[in-house]
Amino acid sequence: MVPVQKPRILKGFRDFLPSDMLLRQRVIETFRDVFERHGFEPLDTPAVEYLDVLTGKAGENERLMYRFEDNGGRSVGLRYDLTVPLARVVAMRQNDILLPFKRHHIAPVWRAENTQRGRFREFWQCDADIVGSSEPSSDAEVIAVLAEALTAVNLPAFVVHINHRGILEAVGRIAGADAEHASALFRTIDKLDKIGPDGVTDELAAAGFAPPAIQIVMNTVTMTGEPCEILDRLAHTFSDDPAGRDALGELREIFALLPAFGVPTSRYRFDPSLARGLDYYTGPVFEARVVEPRVGSVAGAGRYDGLVGRFLGRDIPATGMSLGLERIIEVIREHELMPVPASMAEVFVVSFADHINAGAALAHTLRQAGFRVDLSMLPRKSVGDQLKYAGRKGVPLAVVPSHGPEDDGTAVVRDLTSGDQQSYAVAEIGAALRARLAVATNPELLTEARHA
Amino acid sequence: MVPVQKPRILKGFRDFLPSDMLLRQRVIETFRDVFERHGFEPLDTPAVEYLDVLTGKAGENERLMYRFEDNGGRSVGLRYDLTVPLARVVAMRQNDILLPFKRHHIAPVWRAENTQRGRFREFWQCDADIVGSSEPSSDAEVIAVLAEALTAVNLPAFVVHINHRGILEAVGRIAGADAEHASALFRTIDKLDKIGPDGVTDELAAAGFAPPAIQIVMNTVTMTGEPCEILDRLAHTFSDDPAGRDALGELREIFALLPAFGVPTSRYRFDPSLARGLDYYTGPVFEARVVEPRVGSVAGAGRYDGLVGRFLGRDIPATGMSLGLERIIEVIREHELMPVPASMAEVFVVSFADHINAGAALAHTLRQAGFRVDLSMLPRKSVGDQLKYAGRKGVPLAVVPSHGPEDDGTAVVRDLTSGDQQSYAVAEIGAALRARLAVATNPELLTEARHA
Repeated sequence: MVPVQKPRILKGFRDFLPSDMLLRQRVIETFRDVFERHGFEPLDTPAVEYLDVLTGKAGENERLMYRFEDNGGRSVGLRYDLTVPLARVVAMRQNDILLPFKRHHIAPVWRAENTQRGRFREFWQCDADIVGSSEPSSDAEVIAVLAEALTAVNLPAFVVHINHRGILEAVGRIAGADAEHASALFRTIDKLDKIGPDGVTDELAAAGFAPPAIQIVMNTVTMTGEPCEILDRLAHTFSDDPAGRDALGELREIFALLPAFGVPTSRYRFDPSLARGLDYYTGPVFEARVVEPRVGSVAGAGRYDGLVGRFLGRDIPATGMSLGLERIIEVIREHELMPVPASMAEVFVVSFADHINAGAALAHTLRQAGFRVDLSMLPRKSVGDQLKYAGRKGVPLAVVPSHGPEDDGTAVVRDLTSGDQQSYAVAEIGAALRARLAVATNPELLTEARHA
Repeated sequence: MVPVQKPRILKGFRDFLPSDMLLRQRVIETFRDVFERHGFEPLDTPAVEYLDVLTGKAGENERLMYRFEDNGGRSVGLRYDLTVPLARVVAMRQNDILLPFKRHHIAPVWRAENTQRGRFREFWQCDADIVGSSEPSSDAEVIAVLAEALTAVNLPAFVVHINHRGILEAVGRIAGADAEHASALFRTIDKLDKIGPDGVTDELAAAGFAPPAIQIVMNTVTMTGEPCEILDRLAHTFSDDPAGRDALGELREIFALLPAFGVPTSRYRFDPSLARGLDYYTGPVFEARVVEPRVGSVAGAGRYDGLVGRFLGRDIPATGMSLGLERIIEVIREHELMPVPASMAEVFVVSFADHINAGAALAHTLRQAGFRVDLSMLPRKSVGDQLKYAGRKGVPLAVVPSHGPEDDGTAVVRDLTSGDQQSYAVAEIGAALRARLAVATNPELLTEARHA
């Protein structure tokens, strides 16, 4: 035996055992289904890219990037998000990609995050973007897909906050902030949800804003009410700021479209304090927050008309969303919002070392009939031990085939939860299993049957 | 505008546009379905691991590994295969994993291969393994899953070659090869398919094997016929080699089981020349080869009872298979073995800038009825231009809603392939689309309808 290599896993990285994977697969499939029902086509890109493709302008991102030299001495890095690779692909494959291009991409990304804050260094993003359309209807569709995706995984109380970068910029201009102060202003405003109006007021005063300027800012960003009310009040505030009024016009179109897209009014609200990553976004910005339980942001979205231009030299409009899979799964698991079985297998087939063909043949027959079947790999153990194994795995039903000299063409079907069991002719087993599985996945049927 | 960053992709890495992804998704889902119908549960592990976990004994693998220091100065690497991480997880999570553990894992791996040979540096593996069972029935199940997976994606002429490491070792002993010569012997034998019997004979002579030894080797590895015939003849050859006879006994059990597992005899054969990576495998070895078209190996499999022991200090038996997704997809694409649509979208809905709600609302209704709908993001273009866009994307059907003052509650359904179109009341559109989609995906229906 060679010396033992200690089995260990890097901090911030995770193994997903089947008990985790069944829910992850279900959530990912649900998101993919929502994306594809909205006409978003799948795209995949490499995990490893040239570093200069990934970084662009240096900054926060570069520090958190997994970067190294490959065997050929090239500076490369692990994909940091799914949006930059999208922009690179659109710029490189102009002859193969028809615009507008709606694509989804569900894949892991890597960030050298501080894991002490409960963040992961490898995590999945689920993105859906529309490249090549500046229509407000594309922003409205992004919001609709976002709301439908979260609804499809049973998130109960979420709200999509909607704002526009142009509104914050107009507020900055009216408050007399120059470019440098504007950045600080946006960062402070973005904290409204965390530190409250008083906190924001104090921070702005400390940053040197005069009381009248602070007053204008606070009046704007704390507005609440129906979207059209806020729009009307802001139109008044921005009466001398054409760019601000343009932003309001775009938002007005988006809000007008949402009902036709089937988004209930309870699922979104106009939030003039929403800032998000302003380096990146160029128009409307969105963020989905889960209010109850209060877990905060689970998805971000917005328009970023400049990103493809970084690779192309001319801008191509783009808007899109990114669902934070990890946090969403955490909420679903904690609040049991999506029931998943403990095992993929529906039926466990007991086997016998002396008559191994009996179990194998029955398992094959049941698979052909469409069941997910786990054939026992413990043929030398007692039937009781084999059933105990299946029960611990969480397989709902087991079948014990008759075999050898006593083979009378029957098999016993056993419910591993209740212990109920009954013998059937082999030809009837499929129907018996189907009936019991229907009960197992919908216990009310059993109650009805008992009362019948 | 910031200076343009040249968009480029690393050699050996690929973007998968929707036209590639639709087939990839279909193949991956088919494999996953086969795995899950056999009771294999999903597992996922990190892309990045400690380097010492990935490498173990230094060698070929380490040279081809993507390795680097992370920001914390740790030596790490990108996952090279899916088997070593499985062994690591089983050793680390003994309290959470019930043995026997059947898992599948479908994910990318990275190798710094020489791309001139048409190999990729990022490619996907589709693995299914059984850990914790030394039963020949687990090897038989691996062969059955392998054969069923390749059948499910319509590979026409493939054969699973079956051998046992113990047979090659016995041949080595009988030919009088010491440990060092045995390795060279196995490598030469493994080339039989490529260089033919004369080539193998010449190479063995050059390596210093005497003519009688060469004769024994050639007689053994070129045996053909029914598995039981070859087993009987080898039993005679190995009459004085108990370990060789044990290997034959295991193979005899596996061959006896395959019919019960539903594997047709045309799908496998006993091939005493099959060697595969002998450092790794400890028992039966399998390899699926596509004969027509002659593309060679598309999947490898076998028993590797020592791998978990590297992390645990005691061996845990294991057997499993790895499907070479990239080569399989190449064959499927080249020979059009699995038809896939050009677009995920089934229906394109035309929209109008002045009446944008009309298209959005119809698209929403159709999605709720279960259709995959691409709502036009070109509302300012003419209907003709919008339909041309949808046709180029490969969406089979389009709907043009009536709108504005002329809105009479109807919409025109147009077949984008034939140009046929007809007007329907909105309530009837779902049924009309369903009928036309059935024809589009099964053209025989149309012929039948025409002949009816």
